[in-house]
Amino acid sequence: MTKIINDVQNIVCHMLQGFYFEHKDRVSYNEKYNLIFRKDLADMDQQVVLISGGGSGHEPADFGYVGDGMLSVAVVGEIFVPPTPEQVLEAIRLVDRSRSVLLIIKNFTADVGNFLTAEALAKEEGRTVDHVIVNDDVSIENDVTYNKRRRGVAGTVLVHKILGAAAREGYTLEQLKELGEQVIGRLHTLGVALSPANDPTKDEPSFTLQKNEAYYGVGIHGEKGYRKEVFSSSEKLAVELFNKLKSVYRWRRQDPFAILVNGLGATPLVEQYAFANDIRRLCELESLDVRFVKIGTHLTSLDMEGISLSFLKIEDPRWEAWLKADVEAAKW
Amino acid sequence: MTKIINDVQNIVCHMLQGFYFEHKDRVSYNEKYNLIFRKDLADMDQQVVLISGGGSGHEPADFGYVGDGMLSVAVVGEIFVPPTPEQVLEAIRLVDRSRSVLLIIKNFTADVGNFLTAEALAKEEGRTVDHVIVNDDVSIENDVTYNKRRRGVAGTVLVHKILGAAAREGYTLEQLKELGEQVIGRLHTLGVALSPANDPTKDEPSFTLQKNEAYYGVGIHGEKGYRKEVFSSSEKLAVELFNKLKSVYRWRRQDPFAILVNGLGATPLVEQYAFANDIRRLCELESLDVRFVKIGTHLTSLDMEGISLSFLKIEDPRWEAWLKADVEAAKW
Repeated sequence: MTKIINDVQNIVCHMLQGFYFEHKDRVSYNEKYNLIFRKDLADMDQQVVLISGGGSGHEPADFGYVGDGMLSVAVVGEIFVPPTPEQVLEAIRLVDRSRSVLLIIKNFTADVGNFLTAEALAKEEGRTVDHVIVNDDVSIENDVTYNKRRRGVAGTVLVHKILGAAAREGYTLEQLKELGEQVIGRLHTLGVALSPANDPTKDEPSFTLQKNEAYYGVGIHGEKGYRKEVFSSSEKLAVELFNKLKSVYRWRRQDPFAILVNGLGATPLVEQYAFANDIRRLCELESLDVRFVKIGTHLTSLDMEGISLSFLKIEDPRWEAWLKADVEAAKW
Repeated sequence: MTKIINDVQNIVCHMLQGFYFEHKDRVSYNEKYNLIFRKDLADMDQQVVLISGGGSGHEPADFGYVGDGMLSVAVVGEIFVPPTPEQVLEAIRLVDRSRSVLLIIKNFTADVGNFLTAEALAKEEGRTVDHVIVNDDVSIENDVTYNKRRRGVAGTVLVHKILGAAAREGYTLEQLKELGEQVIGRLHTLGVALSPANDPTKDEPSFTLQKNEAYYGVGIHGEKGYRKEVFSSSEKLAVELFNKLKSVYRWRRQDPFAILVNGLGATPLVEQYAFANDIRRLCELESLDVRFVKIGTHLTSLDMEGISLSFLKIEDPRWEAWLKADVEAAKW
């Protein structure tokens, strides 16, 4: 695949410098540890500081969500490789010791390990740190590997938004952790790919698909899905993902939901909107009360063609208000 | 190509319904004429109404830019087909006769023809309508077809932003037209493709490229470019586009510019940022005074892989302020 990059070794640095070129008025960039953070981090009063991150290749996540009303710091790993504990610890160290930090971690074994190691080291320094772990991906049926494989994927962006708005309102660390866990418990995502991601650091794509084949349940690092079938229409994809979510929620008429339709990297907006329209029709058939909709390229897998669908059951009207609250992040 | 759509005949309708599903709180949707417009159109006091549009396949342009501080109405044609005069006339008719309308037209023969026909019909109805024509594409060398081929491409989004902010400040129709022409005169864009766009209404892509080939100067409907060469790096593309723009501007050190790096549809953000970083370095070498940078997928050619680079020489500090002014549009 032809990729608009220079040397693969420096791709993350080049990307972050490009982002910083655009946003240097309002974010800072620590080049040594690949951190993007709010320029006014020290002036945010006593707001709890939200830190998230992960491997690169998921842009605009997470640095595209740094800004007032969302994340305070994004920690950026190499392509599909989580940030090291050292990087996460340096992110925490950006913040004055007197303030509290919440880590928003996606549920991948290596990510969780590195973030929790950093949390432990920060606590040894006398810092106040806690975390939530996002595990919205319900692509895998209940089996022995279920919890392990309930990965953190696009729904994470909704967690960033809700917690970011609540933190701005002065929620404490304890309150944010509780809120985060409540939201994560109601948040489910399923993805479908029409092509694999081509990792420029690897020789081969992580899986292969025939032309005109769809692969349900794929992860965002090329993790395998649960079924391949011949692609026929947007509606068919929508019905599959929607029905899987229905079986998870067992929703009732008028249940209130927020919805995120997310392009996985190379999916044009025309297709994202067409797919979202199929979801709209299915929601109407089920008489769901859709309170919030977001459509766009929000958490990706490099150049993967495909889409993910996230539902969040809104248990508290404040969740809806926080989803709709003003925000300064580049790519919300 | 596998595309997440249903029937090709209804793709524009499905797309607009998907967009409306997301934004019905703040936009209205006229399904008969494919119009997306501000819900508060009637309450905008005496602001001049900005209308733009064109064929589909360029999403998020132009409906993604409808909102306070940018466009008032977007008129949406079929894939790569401009809206009819009737559609544009209906867009103008949304507005009370007492108010003024400015059409922002991209410089393609059919677009210009249809918009100007509608303008003439509206004037016969006693309406006050004028227009500007955006022709930012400088991909073609000076030759007999130069003006014809100076198409309106991604730079149009910067015109929407500046004129939208000025309209909100109360600029008159005459002032907006003059401002628009000044901005357009300083606005130049060049694109490069790594793959053609696959129009779902056509059997074949509009041009073919070898794997690992770059095509400079392509248009947004598959119009041919000026040179193919083997792709080697992001930096090489950046140098080519940057030097062409340099030869157009003949800039001097410290000249102030706004820059738009635009993904053409299927280009992941990681590549857009990497490319933007190369542009940053080139600007530093030339000691340009870069006042504003925007990076993202803003005006596309369906699923084309590639990038366009727009420069706007900032002749007036208000242009910078308007580029940075608050805006409510979905995809700015």
